[in-house]
Formats: sequence, structure tokens, C-alpha cells
Amino acid sequence: MSEPCLIGIDWGTSSLRAYLLGPDASLLDSRTQPWGIQHTPDRDFARAYRLLLEDWLAQWPGLPAIGSGMIGSRQGWREVPYMDCPADAHALAAGLVSLDTGAGALHLIPGVRQGGERPNVLRGEETQVVGALALEPGLIEEALLLLPGTHSKWVQVRDGKLQGFTTFMTGELFAVLRDHSILGRPALEAGVIGDAQVYRRGVQAARDSGSRGIADQLFSVRSLVLSGELPATNSLDYLSGLLIGEELRSALSGPAVSSVPTPVLLGDPALCTRYRQAFSLFGIESVRSLDNPGVAGLWRIAQAAGLVTAKEVQHD
Amino acid sequence: MSEPCLIGIDWGTSSLRAYLLGPDASLLDSRTQPWGIQHTPDRDFARAYRLLLEDWLAQWPGLPAIGSGMIGSRQGWREVPYMDCPADAHALAAGLVSLDTGAGALHLIPGVRQGGERPNVLRGEETQVVGALALEPGLIEEALLLLPGTHSKWVQVRDGKLQGFTTFMTGELFAVLRDHSILGRPALEAGVIGDAQVYRRGVQAARDSGSRGIADQLFSVRSLVLSGELPATNSLDYLSGLLIGEELRSALSGPAVSSVPTPVLLGDPALCTRYRQAFSLFGIESVRSLDNPGVAGLWRIAQAAGLVTAKEVQHD
Repeated sequence: MSEPCLIGIDWGTSSLRAYLLGPDASLLDSRTQPWGIQHTPDRDFARAYRLLLEDWLAQWPGLPAIGSGMIGSRQGWREVPYMDCPADAHALAAGLVSLDTGAGALHLIPGVRQGGERPNVLRGEETQVVGALALEPGLIEEALLLLPGTHSKWVQVRDGKLQGFTTFMTGELFAVLRDHSILGRPALEAGVIGDAQVYRRGVQAARDSGSRGIADQLFSVRSLVLSGELPATNSLDYLSGLLIGEELRSALSGPAVSSVPTPVLLGDPALCTRYRQAFSLFGIESVRSLDNPGVAGLWRIAQAAGLVTAKEVQHD
Repeated sequence: MSEPCLIGIDWGTSSLRAYLLGPDASLLDSRTQPWGIQHTPDRDFARAYRLLLEDWLAQWPGLPAIGSGMIGSRQGWREVPYMDCPADAHALAAGLVSLDTGAGALHLIPGVRQGGERPNVLRGEETQVVGALALEPGLIEEALLLLPGTHSKWVQVRDGKLQGFTTFMTGELFAVLRDHSILGRPALEAGVIGDAQVYRRGVQAARDSGSRGIADQLFSVRSLVLSGELPATNSLDYLSGLLIGEELRSALSGPAVSSVPTPVLLGDPALCTRYRQAFSLFGIESVRSLDNPGVAGLWRIAQAAGLVTAKEVQHD
């Protein structure tokens, strides 16, 4: 195995992932624990960190470490102030906050803040965006990157910089409606069977809602079951379709649609597939996706900060 | 006190209300217990009913009793099949289901089902609608009745009949987002202070979202707090404004707005006040409200069923 150059850490709300990276960001090893900041045993981040990385830290003392995600939030290990838009790898590198882990320094990457009329924040996604631009230089000039998930982010990139972004709470809405509203009950009682056709039907209903949106259709997840037109076992797929469809309907409405570049999806492959199907129903085909560009992002920001040698930097 | 003619029962999800009615629907007595169908002790509806009404039933045996609400749902005492739209007091009377309570009969009022492309159901609201038409004959020819709440219903009335309706899950959405999403947390930690101005700001944001709707603004309930532009203590008022504003934005969008009659609100006075403020921000003034027309509805349907003498029936 090549000599390691960097430890990359992706420490979010629900999980802690570590990557051992060799020259040119090659992945030498990785490990995961369900120790996201909401589930870190005793909220003892230092112990969790050392426990996960014990052998790496022992074998390669002094190996630089860089981390991104909610670990840098107020609820995390150390709050890292946001950097303002527009932001790129160099701006993020300039905002790194170093933390003494008790086993060497860990450099935490800042999130990004959007000011102005629509204040907004992200944390963790900035590293995936930087990684996507490193993996696909064609995205640098102009791109629309979509990171679906609990809080789905639509990120505008221009001139290699994260210019601005929008948040849709699609994933969290789905979870709270499934677990805590009357819409989840039929599926809870009947059992859940996935049905791609029902999912598409939900997307279409949202698409065809025009300017009304789905506010008056959410309840149909229940009434279609009561009227026998939707099996209870598939009702969550219909809800998922409605919510993802509403995200697309809202994001794609307005005058600027035709001038927007085709989005590129970053994230979990199964979720990206669902979004690709939804885009297709909106007439937007050939939406590509990149699986976990976060590793490339950690490497790129570490390069910009001088933590690893920057042999293959293409533009500075 | 006049001789009682009817016991009226409003038995919903969270409470059980009983009204003792004299001639011409005059209210002689009433009582309430928090024994809604989700909280009825031991799910023993017969016992709860007899316990609440023991003395009335003993003093006036044979007094007719009529009830509406979720007590007639699958999760209630006895499932009462829905009546189809269009429906009026006579159709509802024809659909009554009589139940032996062990202390005389209780006649349960059916809910109403809308078929066609937008299947939908309501149960309990039909009685309030009938009551509103009994109290205000001016609404009989044509009216738009809005019953805000957990599941807000917009009911179209024409020729004295409930013609169709739409459901917005505004109240339930607010509750699940407050109690189970990231949006509720700041207020939970900071304490809640009501602020009418912040509520109006939320309504305006929804109104001004145009065809995009609030899908990309929900998260602002958090990001505005993070950016210092919204006090955490008021953030739930902003959320409430966004959700009620979205209900109005959605309901009032589309080509048919100008031909829609000014809505009349039926329900809880405090909630009706919030909706009136929201309508005003949409340029719709002089929205009236009727407080608890359900009693008049119970009486009117009992009349149509011949359970009480129909001296003052105006149109048959």
C-alpha cells in the first residue's frame, strides 16, 4: 500500500466516516461508525475520534487530518464560523479551524453562509461541491449541483465558486410525515412495499399541480387509500413522489428555468436514482450523478491549505 | 328551563362534547370531556357516553340523541358509511346510523365523500356546514366555507348543498414540524413568545413566493434564526404564517379566484382571527366568521330526520 498522506473525516448528524488517503487522493482504507454528532457516545468527540482512528494514528503519527460536516456546528465538537458566498477551496482552506484532538490536530472545514434577502447556510455540502469540481472540471465554469437528502441543497456554481444555494426540507418532511402524521399510519399498519409506478404517480401529481403546488394534495395520500385508489402498502411511495415532485416543481418554476444548466446530482446512489426519475417526468433527461465526491473535496481543500503536496493542482 | 328536545353530540379525535337542546335549538346545558376517540378510557365508548350523560338520560329517558364526528369513523364506535357529494341535511339524515348505547339510541351522522378525480373525505365538518346554512340563509345559494384546523377544509356550497371540498393539512403540518423537525428546536430551547408582526411576515413571504410556493422557504424558519434576523422565541409564529400563507396562496391561485365568493370562516375564534389577518394580507377584507355552528347543524339534521318537530323549517 502507498504511504498515506491525509486522513479525511466526514462527520455528520448520523454517522462518522474516516478515509485514509494516499498520493493523488487514492483511497487506501476507510471505516464508519454510527457516531454522528447526535449519537456520539457521551458526546465525547475526542474519544470517538481516537477510538475510530487508533491504529492509523499510532502507525502514522503526524499524519494531517481534515474534517467536514456538522462536527463543526454549534452542536458539534467546535463551532467553525461560516465563510460567505462566493466561496471556493481556497476560501474554505482560509477558514479552517484547528482542533487539538489529543492525538494530533484535526482541521475543521467551515460551512458556507449566504447573506442578502435569502439568508441560508450549509455545512458539509461545501466539501462535496468542491470535490465535484475537482472530479469534473467541466463543472467549474457554470453548474447547478443538487445534493438531495434530509435538507436538499440546490447549489449554483460559477467561475469555480459556490455562488448561492437554496434549501428544500424534502427528506425531513418525508420523515416527519411518515413517522408522526396521519399520512404514515396506513403504511405503518399495512407494511411498506416499494412501488416505482406509484412513486412516479406522486411526482406527476405534483408536476401537474401548476402554481397551486401540493398544499391541497398532501391529504390525498390518505384519501386515495380510503377511496381504494392507492394501496396502503404503497402510500409512502406516493408521498415521496409528491414531495420530491414539489421540490422540482418549485425549483423549476419561474422565469429563469430555461437558462439554468442541467443539474448534476451528488449523493446517495439510490436517492439520486429517484431524483433522476423525477427529472425525467419533468422532461429533463440525462441528469448525471456523482457518488460521494466528498473524499475528493476533503483532499482538494487540504491541498489548498498546504496540508498535502499539491502536485496536480490545475488552477490556483 | 324549557323541556329538552334533543341531545347533540360532537365526538371528535380529541374531545367529547354534549349539548342539551330545547325547542328551536336553544342551548339548555352542555358539557365536555377530553374523551375524544383517541383518548376514550379503555376505548369503551358506551361507558364514556353513559358516564357523561347519566343524569340527562335518567331525567329524560327516550330523549333523541344525534352525534357527529370521528366517532363514526373506522376508529370510532361504529363506522358510518360516507354520503356522496352533493349532500345536504336531508341526505345526511337519510344516512344516519342508529346505535344502541345501552341507554337509548344514538343516531350517528355520516361524513361526506367526494368522488371523481380528487377523492376526498370529511367527517364532522358536514354538520358545521349544515349549521352555518341554518344560521345564515344568505349562504345557501352559494358560499365558500373555510373550516381551519388540523385538516383545514375549504367547502363549496351551492343550492343549499355541500358540492365539493379541498383539504389542507395546515394544522397537522405545523404540529409535526414544531414537535419533530429541526424547525421547532430553537423555539423549544428559547421559549415561545407570540408575535403578530412575525406571523404576518411569514404570511407575506408565502404570498410573495408566487408560483414557487414555500417549498424552498420552510428552511428559512431556521436560517433566519441562525442569521439573527428572526428571534428564536418568535420562530413558530413565522412558521405558522408561512403555512397558513401557503394555504391561502395555493387556494387562491389559478384562474377561478375572482369568481369565488368571499370565504366565511367556521371554527375556533382565535384561529379564525389568524386566518382573517392572513386574508387581509392577500387583499381580501371583511371575511366573516361563525363560532361553532355545529349545534345548529345537529339540530337541523335531527329535524330533517324527524327526530325533533320541524316547526321552523324554512325549505323542504
